[in-house]
Amino acid sequence: MTGEAEQKHPAGSDGPAPPATPGTRRPGGRTARTRAAVRDAVLSGLTELGYPGLTVEYVAEHSGVHKTTLYRRWGDVEGLVADALDLAGEDSWLPPDTGSLEGDLRALAREVVSSFTGATAAASGSAMIAAGFRSERAATALRAYYAERFARCEAIVERAVRRGELAAGPETDIDAGALVRAAPAPLLCRLFVTREPIDTALADQAAAAALAAARAGVFTRGRSAGTAVDLPERAG
Amino acid sequence: MTGEAEQKHPAGSDGPAPPATPGTRRPGGRTARTRAAVRDAVLSGLTELGYPGLTVEYVAEHSGVHKTTLYRRWGDVEGLVADALDLAGEDSWLPPDTGSLEGDLRALAREVVSSFTGATAAASGSAMIAAGFRSERAATALRAYYAERFARCEAIVERAVRRGELAAGPETDIDAGALVRAAPAPLLCRLFVTREPIDTALADQAAAAALAAARAGVFTRGRSAGTAVDLPERAG
Repeated sequence: MTGEAEQKHPAGSDGPAPPATPGTRRPGGRTARTRAAVRDAVLSGLTELGYPGLTVEYVAEHSGVHKTTLYRRWGDVEGLVADALDLAGEDSWLPPDTGSLEGDLRALAREVVSSFTGATAAASGSAMIAAGFRSERAATALRAYYAERFARCEAIVERAVRRGELAAGPETDIDAGALVRAAPAPLLCRLFVTREPIDTALADQAAAAALAAARAGVFTRGRSAGTAVDLPERAG
Repeated sequence: MTGEAEQKHPAGSDGPAPPATPGTRRPGGRTARTRAAVRDAVLSGLTELGYPGLTVEYVAEHSGVHKTTLYRRWGDVEGLVADALDLAGEDSWLPPDTGSLEGDLRALAREVVSSFTGATAAASGSAMIAAGFRSERAATALRAYYAERFARCEAIVERAVRRGELAAGPETDIDAGALVRAAPAPLLCRLFVTREPIDTALADQAAAAALAAARAGVFTRGRSAGTAVDLPERAG
């Protein structure tokens, strides 16, 4: 949302990666720089050639990292793609904090629209999601990426509960994971499944639908959700 | 949902294709049979090889239709894939009619779960959606397929309005297209974007969320939807 630096993420609900890649062991160091260069080459390769066309040779040529290093550290194309996704998840993105649940959900949904408006970000994000169809490791990495992303988004629900916008307690726990997924889902579905256009009005509608469902108690656990919608990291 | 015959459709919200393929010019005739055989070969090729691996030669070999015929009638792989999607849209599927809006939305959402439970249907459906990432014509065909599918689903909303379950009139028109998309969207998003598991409990939750949003007036036009969410065939 801040619009600075490169935007190389697969998700709608994400911001640009900070240049120094905080969260890696050696922020700003040679390892982090190499990894970022490899990630950039992977994303441009996915965008240009698609998953089936991507080769270790392509990544070597476009990252300036020697092929033997790539094989040693990443194994193969699947490992390269999975690590590019892991790296995308290591940014400092935080969910919107507008002061109201309604505002936060709307901002979250609108981020999907803005993320996929820029041609480059849209193409590389789309290429990552496409890789999930061709590689089990990419699919697993996508799932982990989104699970972590949406786990961050649960702060939106926690704040809403603290403000008294949603009732929660020992017997009325909110299924925060389902709620924060509800606003972006119709937009991601249109973008990547039904191939229909999205815009800000549609984002606002999706956010309003999620809010109405939350207020009606749809995301209150034990009512209609059950435990099946727990986030993976909680269910384990 | 009826469980008979082959299930070779890309969507969640669809039933098996009737054997005689009604809607084609020569139902049950040689042309329809050829087209169905070609469609079957395209789907098995997409499932087995993915879009980038699919060739006209593969389709010829697996359909028993000569390569020159395929080139003449379908042009190329893109044409073959697009026609397989067009054909999938020519079935006699009707949306659920359970007697209540709540029941219809729940049945619709549950169809997504059941459609993608069978391994074969899931694989060919997934392959079709994957083709949308690699081919503009496939993406266009997917969009047309879903637009037509969801247009059929609007009967659910029309019946709900007739039963008095939803208020509609000259000033309170329901955005039926957005409402019928709302129930399956979280499931399709999980299946093909975020790669998270789905189940019946999640389908019921998605249906309940769509219903709550509808009752709260979220899909009432002019309130938060605007005209941007009109179905493509209406907007033109």
